[in-house]
Amino acid sequence: MGLLARIESPADVRRLTAAQVDELAAEIREFLVQSVSRTGGHLGPNLGVVELTLAMHRVFDSPRDSMVFDTGHQAYVHKLVTGRKDFADLRKRGGLSGYPSRAESEHDIVENSHASTALSWADGIAKANVVRGRTDRHVVAVIGDGALTGGMAWEALNNIAAGHDRRLVIVVNDNGRSYAPTIGGLAYALTALRTTRGYENVLSWGKKTLKRSGPPGRLAYDALHGLKKGVKDIVAPQGMFEDLGLKYIGPVDGHDTAAVERALARAKAFGGPVIVHVITEKGRGYTPAEQDLLDRFHAVGRIHPETGLPIAPSRFGWTSVFADEMVRIGRRRPDVVAVTAAMLAPTGLAPFATEFPHRTFDVGIAEQHAATSAAGMAFAGLHPVVAVYATFLNRAFDQVVMDVALHKAGVTFVLDRAGITGDDGASHNGMWDMAMLSVVPGLRLAAPRDEPTLRAALRLAVDVDDAPTVVRYPKSPLVDPIPAIDTVDGVDVLARHGAGTARDVLVVGVGALVPSALGVGELLAAHGLRVTVVDPRWVLPVPEALVKLAGEHDHVVTMEDGLVDGGVGALLAQRAREARVATPVQSVGVPLGFLDHATRDQIVADLRLRPEDIVRDVLVALNEPTAPTEG
Amino acid sequence: MGLLARIESPADVRRLTAAQVDELAAEIREFLVQSVSRTGGHLGPNLGVVELTLAMHRVFDSPRDSMVFDTGHQAYVHKLVTGRKDFADLRKRGGLSGYPSRAESEHDIVENSHASTALSWADGIAKANVVRGRTDRHVVAVIGDGALTGGMAWEALNNIAAGHDRRLVIVVNDNGRSYAPTIGGLAYALTALRTTRGYENVLSWGKKTLKRSGPPGRLAYDALHGLKKGVKDIVAPQGMFEDLGLKYIGPVDGHDTAAVERALARAKAFGGPVIVHVITEKGRGYTPAEQDLLDRFHAVGRIHPETGLPIAPSRFGWTSVFADEMVRIGRRRPDVVAVTAAMLAPTGLAPFATEFPHRTFDVGIAEQHAATSAAGMAFAGLHPVVAVYATFLNRAFDQVVMDVALHKAGVTFVLDRAGITGDDGASHNGMWDMAMLSVVPGLRLAAPRDEPTLRAALRLAVDVDDAPTVVRYPKSPLVDPIPAIDTVDGVDVLARHGAGTARDVLVVGVGALVPSALGVGELLAAHGLRVTVVDPRWVLPVPEALVKLAGEHDHVVTMEDGLVDGGVGALLAQRAREARVATPVQSVGVPLGFLDHATRDQIVADLRLRPEDIVRDVLVALNEPTAPTEG
Repeated sequence: MGLLARIESPADVRRLTAAQVDELAAEIREFLVQSVSRTGGHLGPNLGVVELTLAMHRVFDSPRDSMVFDTGHQAYVHKLVTGRKDFADLRKRGGLSGYPSRAESEHDIVENSHASTALSWADGIAKANVVRGRTDRHVVAVIGDGALTGGMAWEALNNIAAGHDRRLVIVVNDNGRSYAPTIGGLAYALTALRTTRGYENVLSWGKKTLKRSGPPGRLAYDALHGLKKGVKDIVAPQGMFEDLGLKYIGPVDGHDTAAVERALARAKAFGGPVIVHVITEKGRGYTPAEQDLLDRFHAVGRIHPETGLPIAPSRFGWTSVFADEMVRIGRRRPDVVAVTAAMLAPTGLAPFATEFPHRTFDVGIAEQHAATSAAGMAFAGLHPVVAVYATFLNRAFDQVVMDVALHKAGVTFVLDRAGITGDDGASHNGMWDMAMLSVVPGLRLAAPRDEPTLRAALRLAVDVDDAPTVVRYPKSPLVDPIPAIDTVDGVDVLARHGAGTARDVLVVGVGALVPSALGVGELLAAHGLRVTVVDPRWVLPVPEALVKLAGEHDHVVTMEDGLVDGGVGALLAQRAREARVATPVQSVGVPLGFLDHATRDQIVADLRLRPEDIVRDVLVALNEPTAPTEG
Repeated sequence: MGLLARIESPADVRRLTAAQVDELAAEIREFLVQSVSRTGGHLGPNLGVVELTLAMHRVFDSPRDSMVFDTGHQAYVHKLVTGRKDFADLRKRGGLSGYPSRAESEHDIVENSHASTALSWADGIAKANVVRGRTDRHVVAVIGDGALTGGMAWEALNNIAAGHDRRLVIVVNDNGRSYAPTIGGLAYALTALRTTRGYENVLSWGKKTLKRSGPPGRLAYDALHGLKKGVKDIVAPQGMFEDLGLKYIGPVDGHDTAAVERALARAKAFGGPVIVHVITEKGRGYTPAEQDLLDRFHAVGRIHPETGLPIAPSRFGWTSVFADEMVRIGRRRPDVVAVTAAMLAPTGLAPFATEFPHRTFDVGIAEQHAATSAAGMAFAGLHPVVAVYATFLNRAFDQVVMDVALHKAGVTFVLDRAGITGDDGASHNGMWDMAMLSVVPGLRLAAPRDEPTLRAALRLAVDVDDAPTVVRYPKSPLVDPIPAIDTVDGVDVLARHGAGTARDVLVVGVGALVPSALGVGELLAAHGLRVTVVDPRWVLPVPEALVKLAGEHDHVVTMEDGLVDGGVGALLAQRAREARVATPVQSVGVPLGFLDHATRDQIVADLRLRPEDIVRDVLVALNEPTAPTEG
């Protein structure tokens, strides 16, 4: 770590010789593998942009020139050369954020981890630079080839192309994803393509190449399929850039620092918007990542640095249950199809895709299209299941309202990573979903508490053919099944405590907070109160039975893993007011604000969402003593 | 009307000779001018697609083949040939919708009036046709050149291009907008361009042509600017289509029925996704529209059919006040810039654009980019004012949260046509804005009640540099100024009625409902109640003063022109609960649901939002007699 230790700012990187830059790149790669294997994080993407990031900092002058990283998880190298080398607590409270962070550094601009936004940021900054007469400043945006499938990127390109006076450099980080083995040859073919172009030409070139190298069966299919996608990703933008009148430089080998520097220097000198097309390899230089055909170690938990094998078991039990139930449903329902926005494996749709490839549609990073094309499928007699992370459905709010709900389309949205997710920071928390979806007319939303209720919710959801349905579940571990002791008009009763004349409290648990609701029930009972703990499972619209139950108690506590404002508890309170039910409703959940990265448990503690916090607040609201009695 | 009278279904259109089709087109044009001049409606767009629509119905077989109209306001001709010829009550209650409507006809599919969605719908329907083995059915989507600037359209194209087995015809209705005079020549140039391509080439061709024809000064600039935009719109998609591997046919003269039919027949025979590029003239055949350089009679109120002059005065007083205040602010604040999504004139930004052309940015139909590029501008030291219709901000929810609010960007959103808009139907009502924006951390929203409060709100909004601000106002007429008689910690007190020991009611009016709130106050006073009528003006976040005022009254009524669920009243109730204020809050507004087209007044009556309805409901809630007493 001889060189890296001496890099305190981008100026130090600029002072290096070309040979030293290569040495630094090797040091950084070693540092990333050692460090991220201990903490978890986005390893593959950062290994792919080591040389690119160094070149950017040698050619441009951050923070005077603005550097914008799309999605942001590939900014580790940028952090290392801008004075942030303590990665010991990466993504942990008090440690570095896994994304750019303005609080950390004046070199960071965009913290949002949602894809396809960087070009819009860059366009805005470049426009402002012109208005303010700061015409010597540059804006450099780095965007992956995958993110170019998002509509925002197109909207931005269309605008950037119109501004010939703006000094804006778009680096397309083309990391080829699963078809990496062919990238080298593709890059060669692309050079020729710049004059001949034509999607079909490259495709036949690819077929020939594959035939010569002769990989067997399934692998060949995958490679060809990947190639086909790859060609579309790579060729289309290139042509598009030219058509828009954007200057284009490339493709450039992204691991040849000198070549990248030359390309960036040319781009800088051009004086107007220009694309630099850089071919990189995700996971570059780390054998386990290079050999991983699935996602080249896109994001990892803690791993053994030598083998790349995970240290902790998978946290995604919810996802696995969904994956399994989808396949079961698919077998009995030929009209059920799956839609994903570039997240086939992470959302658990891979098994369905394997068994029903012709009923699986990956639309790219394009949540708007996912929702509206699903409405079209529903119109034409299918029942689509759109699986996305909860935070990304925010992208398709208008489409859920105006295409799905207005047209009474039977579309099921499955929201993984709903609620507090923690270490990925503010923009990955799926805490807006219930508030946002509560204003969609006709929509029904389930928040299952365990495996049986998740399976049941999904089965019921795909049976609804005249309205959008939503099933949402968290990133937290799947708990053991929690049986109901009774059901009141569809509302599960999970526990009843106490008896006699004590004051009667209704505790309503939503989804991931049901176990805590049970804890609250027990603690309140220990304080001598009569308590009923229920789980409505389907929380939007608010069940009438829940309003009725509220009226039969002296106090209601709702607990949810989402925003309090506009959440299920707030809506129950409103329905109660409308029904002239006077029982006070105390709604517990996430207060309006953005959450800094930390573990889920830390955030739960901060927000006073632990049972003991909630019980204390309930007792205060009830004017009861807060010291436990013998109930 | 000899031929039109005999057209009952598309089959009747198919039976006509070519000469008869031209005759029918002329009849339809005459019908549209006479009819829409009496009712108001989208005249220009429909005059532009007469021949195209007839050709579509001759080549394809609706409803077996699916016809999807992007934005939907150009479906009048489609309605005429599918059995809907009674246009007397167009856009009125009980009359035809101004958009496709499934309730009206099995030939209608998409009712959503938000742009750029049609290709996603079409992709979904086409995918479903393949899954269901209905491979002989076609899907035809009509999309305007302007709507192709929307990101959704790009997301859809990217997907459509990948599906070579889908029978999907995309008709790009290229109506050239304001640069219509040059379209004929451009169309010629485009034919050559298909082999030579290159944006700059056409531009110099345009410059030469203009020099030869020599239009004077401003007109020349506008034409060239329009040409430049036009070339970008027309050439880019063409290249893009080819790059994506999409078959492309065109450009075709959209008013030559035989030519359009030939092109569509070729597209139909192709068997895979194909683009048909049709050049049309908005307002074609109606002299006042053809001579209107602004928008060629895009949407009109009632007009004199011969002259095209409006019969009723403009309803857009709010827009004019905003337009004027923006210019004033622009003069003293060089950092204030304007952003619009293809709605420069309708949102009132035209005067600002005229005075500050270099500080005005029209991003096209691209609300996501509008929001995020504004965040970029704010980062780089400007204060952008993004003016859109309220309903279209739904498109940018994620960007408002994750780009603007998370980054504490000082961006002002001005939402015109907020609340109930009425005759444009379900998807044009701006009734989601407050509920949606109430869950954006840090966001401040003002709902001014009149001209002075609108001006004050805008001035205050542009002074906030660390959070998003929103100013929203309705489509309804601007009322005379309503002075405050007092102010309590920023909450305007507009009226106080009654005295003594009677029960105390607080009436909270929000924005457009303030006049009705005053009416409610008077009527309640007539029933012997003490009443205070207030207007908080800035309603998000809910002012603490309002919570305090609520605590000082026996009953609170909130009245807002937006959804009750998640609205200002609901939020006030929640803040009151949190502050342990026990006063009941009765929140009045729009219930969760979609509103059919009708006048605003009819909808207000339906929803029991008239003062007399509200008073009755309040008296019931208070258990007071509902017959008036001498207060």
